[in-house]
Amino acid sequence: MLAEKKIEVELHEERYWEPTAEFLRRNPAGKVPTLKFDGKFLADSQAICEYLEERVPSPPLMPSTAAARYEVRRLVFWFDDKFHGEVTTKLVHERVNKRIMGQGYPDSRNVKSGAQAIKQHLDYMENLLENRRWLAGDVMTLADFTAAAHLSCLDYISDVDWNRSVVVKDWYAKIKSRPAFRTILADVIPGVPQPPHYADLDF
Amino acid sequence: MLAEKKIEVELHEERYWEPTAEFLRRNPAGKVPTLKFDGKFLADSQAICEYLEERVPSPPLMPSTAAARYEVRRLVFWFDDKFHGEVTTKLVHERVNKRIMGQGYPDSRNVKSGAQAIKQHLDYMENLLENRRWLAGDVMTLADFTAAAHLSCLDYISDVDWNRSVVVKDWYAKIKSRPAFRTILADVIPGVPQPPHYADLDF
Repeated sequence: MLAEKKIEVELHEERYWEPTAEFLRRNPAGKVPTLKFDGKFLADSQAICEYLEERVPSPPLMPSTAAARYEVRRLVFWFDDKFHGEVTTKLVHERVNKRIMGQGYPDSRNVKSGAQAIKQHLDYMENLLENRRWLAGDVMTLADFTAAAHLSCLDYISDVDWNRSVVVKDWYAKIKSRPAFRTILADVIPGVPQPPHYADLDF
Repeated sequence: MLAEKKIEVELHEERYWEPTAEFLRRNPAGKVPTLKFDGKFLADSQAICEYLEERVPSPPLMPSTAAARYEVRRLVFWFDDKFHGEVTTKLVHERVNKRIMGQGYPDSRNVKSGAQAIKQHLDYMENLLENRRWLAGDVMTLADFTAAAHLSCLDYISDVDWNRSVVVKDWYAKIKSRPAFRTILADVIPGVPQPPHYADLDF
């Protein structure tokens, strides 16, 4: 979102699972991301995104009618709540976070459950995208970046079957070619090599 | 929120843990609440509240500046995400939902952990309320109703120690006397008698 709005940002690594007192002062919820903006620390990705949209309205990532904004928010929560709980934590947390946090090996029941759930979610996205150019309607919104944030993490560990749906793959190809995705596609997780298809625009 | 905005509503019980096909059509996320408004089904409490605020702006439950709205959203997510996960599910789900859903007895480790966590949350609310009239600032907002929604459920099962903080108790007394709370204080859960202090304005 910052890149789409051309807001420059300097990234800092935060070991939020070993929170320092200073980090908890910035965000008592103990979660990432936090953002320093105009000298003030902000927390919670959804609250931050709504604030940035109000403060830096151009280019818009929210549509212009109340009904369309409702649909964006519904989908943002869908991905950050339902998809996150059923898929992202079951796969990314098990395979990557646990290793980095020194919490041992993936729990195979969780991995199995996440691998099953992502299929239904890709089908749901396909249903949406069969009638819309973007996830929440005919313009690109925060809902697309929220979904893509989850999917790019899963794609890094090769947990997305792009052959399941042509429309979902086409949608992700559009997102992948956005300027905002450049740094995301350059990400490297220590100890987990980037698979060749991850940054490839013709995946 | 509906009562504050004088939107009349007819309530329907939904056994979301045994979802019907019709319910999943209304909300594919399979969660409550859903709201039929202007003939359209809406889902996700936060997306619904933002939509109602835009469609029925009076009386306002969001403040007028972007910075103040950020703080409301941060706290709404605090209660619906962090507080919900650390406290509400650990106590209300264990003691009430499981019984109604026929899922057996409370897990005492969860109950213990929720009873511990609520203390820290009440202290955090006290910190906020020592410098503000309401949770997110000097006007009553959606953040207050979100927090009160969780606390009223916990208060029904006598899991809130109102003696822990005078300012939090005073804040809840103000909320409790709102017209919006009249039906909430009349709620009765089948099989769980309402404790005498629950609906008492001088608790």
